[in-house]
Amino acid sequence: MDMSAARDDGGAGGARERLVVIGGDAAGMSAASQARRMRGPDEWEIVAFERGHFTSYSACGIPYWVGGDVADRDELIARTPEEHRARGIDLRMRTEITEIDTARQRVRARDADTGAESWTAYDGLVVATGARPVRPDMPGADATGVHGVQTLDDGQALLDTLARTRGRRAVVVGAGYIGVEMAEAMINRGYEVTVVNRGSEPMSTLDPDMGRLVHRAMEGLGITMVDDAEVTKILTGDDGRVRAVATQDAEFPADVVILGIGVRPETTLAAAAGLPLGAHGGILTDLAMRVRGHENIWAGGDCVEVLDLVSGQERYIPLGTHANKHGQVIGTNAGGGYATFPGVVGTAVSKVCDLEIARTGLREKDARRAGLAFESVTVESTSRAGYYPGANPMTVKMLAERRTGRLLGVQIVGREGAAKRVDIAAVALTAGMTVDRMTALDLGYAPPFSPVWDPVLVAARKAARAVERHR
Amino acid sequence: MDMSAARDDGGAGGARERLVVIGGDAAGMSAASQARRMRGPDEWEIVAFERGHFTSYSACGIPYWVGGDVADRDELIARTPEEHRARGIDLRMRTEITEIDTARQRVRARDADTGAESWTAYDGLVVATGARPVRPDMPGADATGVHGVQTLDDGQALLDTLARTRGRRAVVVGAGYIGVEMAEAMINRGYEVTVVNRGSEPMSTLDPDMGRLVHRAMEGLGITMVDDAEVTKILTGDDGRVRAVATQDAEFPADVVILGIGVRPETTLAAAAGLPLGAHGGILTDLAMRVRGHENIWAGGDCVEVLDLVSGQERYIPLGTHANKHGQVIGTNAGGGYATFPGVVGTAVSKVCDLEIARTGLREKDARRAGLAFESVTVESTSRAGYYPGANPMTVKMLAERRTGRLLGVQIVGREGAAKRVDIAAVALTAGMTVDRMTALDLGYAPPFSPVWDPVLVAARKAARAVERHR
Repeated sequence: MDMSAARDDGGAGGARERLVVIGGDAAGMSAASQARRMRGPDEWEIVAFERGHFTSYSACGIPYWVGGDVADRDELIARTPEEHRARGIDLRMRTEITEIDTARQRVRARDADTGAESWTAYDGLVVATGARPVRPDMPGADATGVHGVQTLDDGQALLDTLARTRGRRAVVVGAGYIGVEMAEAMINRGYEVTVVNRGSEPMSTLDPDMGRLVHRAMEGLGITMVDDAEVTKILTGDDGRVRAVATQDAEFPADVVILGIGVRPETTLAAAAGLPLGAHGGILTDLAMRVRGHENIWAGGDCVEVLDLVSGQERYIPLGTHANKHGQVIGTNAGGGYATFPGVVGTAVSKVCDLEIARTGLREKDARRAGLAFESVTVESTSRAGYYPGANPMTVKMLAERRTGRLLGVQIVGREGAAKRVDIAAVALTAGMTVDRMTALDLGYAPPFSPVWDPVLVAARKAARAVERHR
Repeated sequence: MDMSAARDDGGAGGARERLVVIGGDAAGMSAASQARRMRGPDEWEIVAFERGHFTSYSACGIPYWVGGDVADRDELIARTPEEHRARGIDLRMRTEITEIDTARQRVRARDADTGAESWTAYDGLVVATGARPVRPDMPGADATGVHGVQTLDDGQALLDTLARTRGRRAVVVGAGYIGVEMAEAMINRGYEVTVVNRGSEPMSTLDPDMGRLVHRAMEGLGITMVDDAEVTKILTGDDGRVRAVATQDAEFPADVVILGIGVRPETTLAAAAGLPLGAHGGILTDLAMRVRGHENIWAGGDCVEVLDLVSGQERYIPLGTHANKHGQVIGTNAGGGYATFPGVVGTAVSKVCDLEIARTGLREKDARRAGLAFESVTVESTSRAGYYPGANPMTVKMLAERRTGRLLGVQIVGREGAAKRVDIAAVALTAGMTVDRMTALDLGYAPPFSPVWDPVLVAARKAARAVERHR
């Protein structure tokens, strides 16, 4: 970055320049760590602010901690504040940034314990403020026993509630990734689980026909699935504790309620500072993760929008793996190197007990919205050679552009061995491959790993025929 | 195909044209089936000759049948002769083609039972004669108790021997795919297994440093690994049964010996007919799988050479998944459609008990031979998020071209979840992707499926840095 930019206070002082990072999780601390690798403490001061108690933790791991697969909270922490400090990062915990002053290149910080405020000047700034959970605006949403699962603190609060609760009925509101993963967690803890979902099927990131398969499989796991249901109220007992979740036409008894209705970009600071926001509310950056129009400000992680390489449009996809990549790119660029984050293809994988769910690229409605005409095919295949023990059935749906045959998207629902096959399609999407070319892909084959035609290739063959027929 | 080509006998007769297929396994019967889908019996007669007892079976599955994972031989048969006939293919079993007469467009067939010979005219011909095992030219190679495992008959003969044999010592000669898979099979049957290997490490399709990992892991499974050993003699007892395998400097007691020393293209017929053969002894075809210089002859499967898309050179890779694709392409083209087999990138996966082994692209020595300068990196990572149960360590080696950073090859050795990750690299190789671009691939991430940086991405990052350093 151009560290010679004029500053109107001497806060960064001395010969060293100062990189300030707002947010101590994946994007922010990856950026800080990578910048530190590129520039030693003699050259640069790196100051990071985190308003919470933890740094660099896996929010994606919270459902598995709650469910008991991960025994201890600390296992989810990739790097503690002390470890970051040992690497030469001046990390200020429990300190919230309350204002970004781009004109004077400084941020105002408030100590959460003392309430004391102070300004810190920056030469370069990284905005990694993450996401905030959508909290439903309904009566009872703040009742005892109602929990989000965004942060480690949330996870701990939920576990504390579970330890105190004798009833075994859990209602999960929302049936996206967090919802289905929390359904698994509560099943694993021996709860009776009801999932209340606004959509027609769970996993609205899939097409409804594939979501239907998830619905059935979750019912098969003993989960009560309630679709097309708007939660209108959370009912409490005399003790102020949750006792039921009410929808427009029913009530579901609940000893604990888990809110898994998604997140929004946390851009309060950015908006106040006049940083550009997109249609989904996230900060807009260029490919080097520099905030558009701001030479020495970068942004990454759950607070930014990303370019969808398939549709050519901006999307909001809060996901740890992107945040880490953003941080890496930001740290490299802020450190005077060169790196880009070219965009995403929308890959996501999840599981509910032994059910595996994966998607990449466009759903049918995404393709339509992007102005693309397409063919859509669905095939059934198996994870291994049919005769090999543990060959699990899976369903693969594939979309290909009409006429050109370009791959547009893949969705997979199956059991062990299903989800990570989506990576084949993710790379093919990135490369702009046609489904016809995909039919000849040289994928790993041996009976314990795949049928002689990998399920993704079976889908590609059918998609190629569909494209050919309608050419 | 051009069915109007002049023929000098009337054998194909009548209004229908005749496609003749030599070889009733994957390539041949896929070609026949696909041609049949494209052309009905009124238009075309399709005659297929198979010298053995079986059609369309999975030779790759034989180790798992011998090892007991697959209970019954018939499970390995994808389609029986009767099933092929019911689909309108005139299949002649136990009938060997002894000559291809390209001038008169006919083949000579011999009935294995009666010895009777006859000519059959063709308008189009598919050569799918497969491979023949390398049989070592040494004393005792034909002794009772010495078995190859190329065909179902071989597998049955081995199982018959095992049923009759009381001793529990097995020596496997060769440590390639067949060798290591048969080592697993014999371990699973409770044998003491010794693998005798000519190379310095098992799995010469990997670089030696990765082969070393396989060596150690196989020893960890209780397998005795003997490297740098040339088998000089197979010793027999007074009863004519095998009793030991002798190398240049040792003897290994054996109650059964399994030969897994690879195969060569079976091109006796093709060579006699003047079809063009390549440096590896396989038939040379164009991208439509048409034999070079022969308008109405196609060839595919284990008897042909294939184009390696990474090195730009021909290779010999006998593998069922290629054979099936060849057959599909041949049947489409022979049926008047259009399809190509663009080539391979050299992907292969295998396992020995819980050890998974995968490779794609070029090894170091392949890259050197192809005239490529490269960087080579190796990383350790895990199959799942480190904190998630069942996160298995894996080693990923990656080669990238110097200067351009183009991916050249990947090798993976690990446990459950390791092998099929090679598909990511296989698609990236096909697309000619650079390792730098790979670092931003949008691969499926969730703690049960991957660390936040997939192991392949960890390798790509390290490779990209190595390329950058030496640019």
